Amino acid sequence: MKAVRIREPGGPEVLEPTDVPMPEPAAGEVLVRVRCAGVNRADILQRLGRYPVPAGSPRDIPGLEFAGEIAASGDGVSGWKTGDRVMGILGGGGYAEYATVPAVQLLPAPEGMDWTAAGAIPEAFLTAADALFARGRLRAGECVVVHSAGGGVGTAALQLARVAEAGPVVGTASAGKLERIRAANLPLDLGIERGSIESDPEHLAGAVRDRIRGAGADVILDTVGAPYWSANIHALATLGRLVIVGVMGGSTVEADLRALMAKRATVVGTVLRARSTAEKGAVSEDFAHRFLPSFEGAEPALRPVIDRSFALDEAAEAHRYMESDASFGRILLEVP
Amino acid sequence: MKAVRIREPGGPEVLEPTDVPMPEPAAGEVLVRVRCAGVNRADILQRLGRYPVPAGSPRDIPGLEFAGEIAASGDGVSGWKTGDRVMGILGGGGYAEYATVPAVQLLPAPEGMDWTAAGAIPEAFLTAADALFARGRLRAGECVVVHSAGGGVGTAALQLARVAEAGPVVGTASAGKLERIRAANLPLDLGIERGSIESDPEHLAGAVRDRIRGAGADVILDTVGAPYWSANIHALATLGRLVIVGVMGGSTVEADLRALMAKRATVVGTVLRARSTAEKGAVSEDFAHRFLPSFEGAEPALRPVIDRSFALDEAAEAHRYMESDASFGRILLEVP
Repeated sequence: MKAVRIREPGGPEVLEPTDVPMPEPAAGEVLVRVRCAGVNRADILQRLGRYPVPAGSPRDIPGLEFAGEIAASGDGVSGWKTGDRVMGILGGGGYAEYATVPAVQLLPAPEGMDWTAAGAIPEAFLTAADALFARGRLRAGECVVVHSAGGGVGTAALQLARVAEAGPVVGTASAGKLERIRAANLPLDLGIERGSIESDPEHLAGAVRDRIRGAGADVILDTVGAPYWSANIHALATLGRLVIVGVMGGSTVEADLRALMAKRATVVGTVLRARSTAEKGAVSEDFAHRFLPSFEGAEPALRPVIDRSFALDEAAEAHRYMESDASFGRILLEVP
Repeated sequence: MKAVRIREPGGPEVLEPTDVPMPEPAAGEVLVRVRCAGVNRADILQRLGRYPVPAGSPRDIPGLEFAGEIAASGDGVSGWKTGDRVMGILGGGGYAEYATVPAVQLLPAPEGMDWTAAGAIPEAFLTAADALFARGRLRAGECVVVHSAGGGVGTAALQLARVAEAGPVVGTASAGKLERIRAANLPLDLGIERGSIESDPEHLAGAVRDRIRGAGADVILDTVGAPYWSANIHALATLGRLVIVGVMGGSTVEADLRALMAKRATVVGTVLRARSTAEKGAVSEDFAHRFLPSFEGAEPALRPVIDRSFALDEAAEAHRYMESDASFGRILLEVP
């Protein structure tokens, strides 16, 4: 089969379309004919040699999610059959015509949805849902701040917060991306320009308190890390939860534990990829139960936001485009 | 009535026994004839002018807990009557012959327990129980590390962890206090000397992993703060929770958010005193329901560890003694 390999750690040019042996599904796994594979920032880190690949996943083929059809099943798989339209998260190996997936991680692709859209769902929506609800315990009526609100996880988080009836939804992004969030009609009660967060650690807190909610943010979903730390702590309400799903801007912070005590605040680090198959299965099942129905119908409350898709053998181009930071929503690879 | 006032911010000598007007119970409060008042480290901070007193509490009379008898009730108090033997946490004002307490914060003093023992329960046991279970979500079978294990909160936490059937119980303290913990027959599966924690940030993790549990600590209860930060993060298991109830050793740390992500760790700051009356009421009620019965019977599973008691007008002496760091368990003031 055709796949995109990481020839050696390096720039986008090390992504090499090549022929590799077809993987075989082990017991409890299915073989999927991939139709669409999402591109994630973690793929860039893996390409650079900075992201450890979980045991059991291909070490040199990136790709954390897919949409496609079941081509074959290993022993002990029930409830799924060849030809089923599915999607899901992967430990790796999505940039390929075929991939193996533990059956517990499978989700049915929403009725009538095309492959590009289905491929844009798993990683972004599962990451956002797990971070907001399982780790951040976001409840109806609570104020949430979503950083990098124009990204894949961010656009998913804005929508999930609204579906869960969370209170005011605050998003931060560049001015241009905030405009695109509004133009795309995504839920956003207050947009804050990212430049102001780094230049003034009190700005985010002030904007949330003055314009949205006096007490501050109940949950903050952060992908940026160090540059936003101080602003995040200032903006948290009493009993607020800061959930860190990424540290794109750096990871070392000077933290004042007394401030955490005074706010009775919680800081949670989280990551999806490193989890066990059983844990990923539980996250997938929770998500299917609570949120999959919201992707269906004439005016679905949830919809993946897609920037652009590339052909599988243009993976290097897709990485260059992601690294330019110009995208709004998801970047995808189509696998014909 | 007689009370101990903080004349001005300063050393133990500013604690001044004096006559003050008797407080009057507002609606929903009772007036208590205090028989025993616990001494806490927060009282020292308040004496030094470094601890903000919550609204509604006396600003110049320390004392965060009491045991005594109900002397009178304000409007709207039901379920309690004059003469009832009670104990509870206070926003302040415990170093006195009388204090007012919201009725929701009252706990019945355990049957047959003397005043000194009852006065040693509320702050230490409620702080430990709330930190371990409500904030730290400690479950049966999980490994817990209790720092300052020879202190009031620490000796309470060791016992509460065992009553809740938490897994291996690890305590850290000076060599002398570890010996006293063993001599007092408190639950302790592994004792670690405090000196080794600061000198080698890997020591705690290594000791827990080698001798107790390979995965590390599920919950760490910390009162020390900055000097233990690095050791704590190393020692946490995947999905571990670090609960910070004090920062005696300092509060500014260099934190690596990537390490929190890799462990999917949670850091929780918490404090009891600043909470609303309703929240304190809920904590007291939970505690009464789950743990009060364990203080009763011939061989109770829970018992306050008492170092020494002083007379109310020896409060300055009691503070000097606490500051010497020689105590094992609680220091109390008897109010004749």
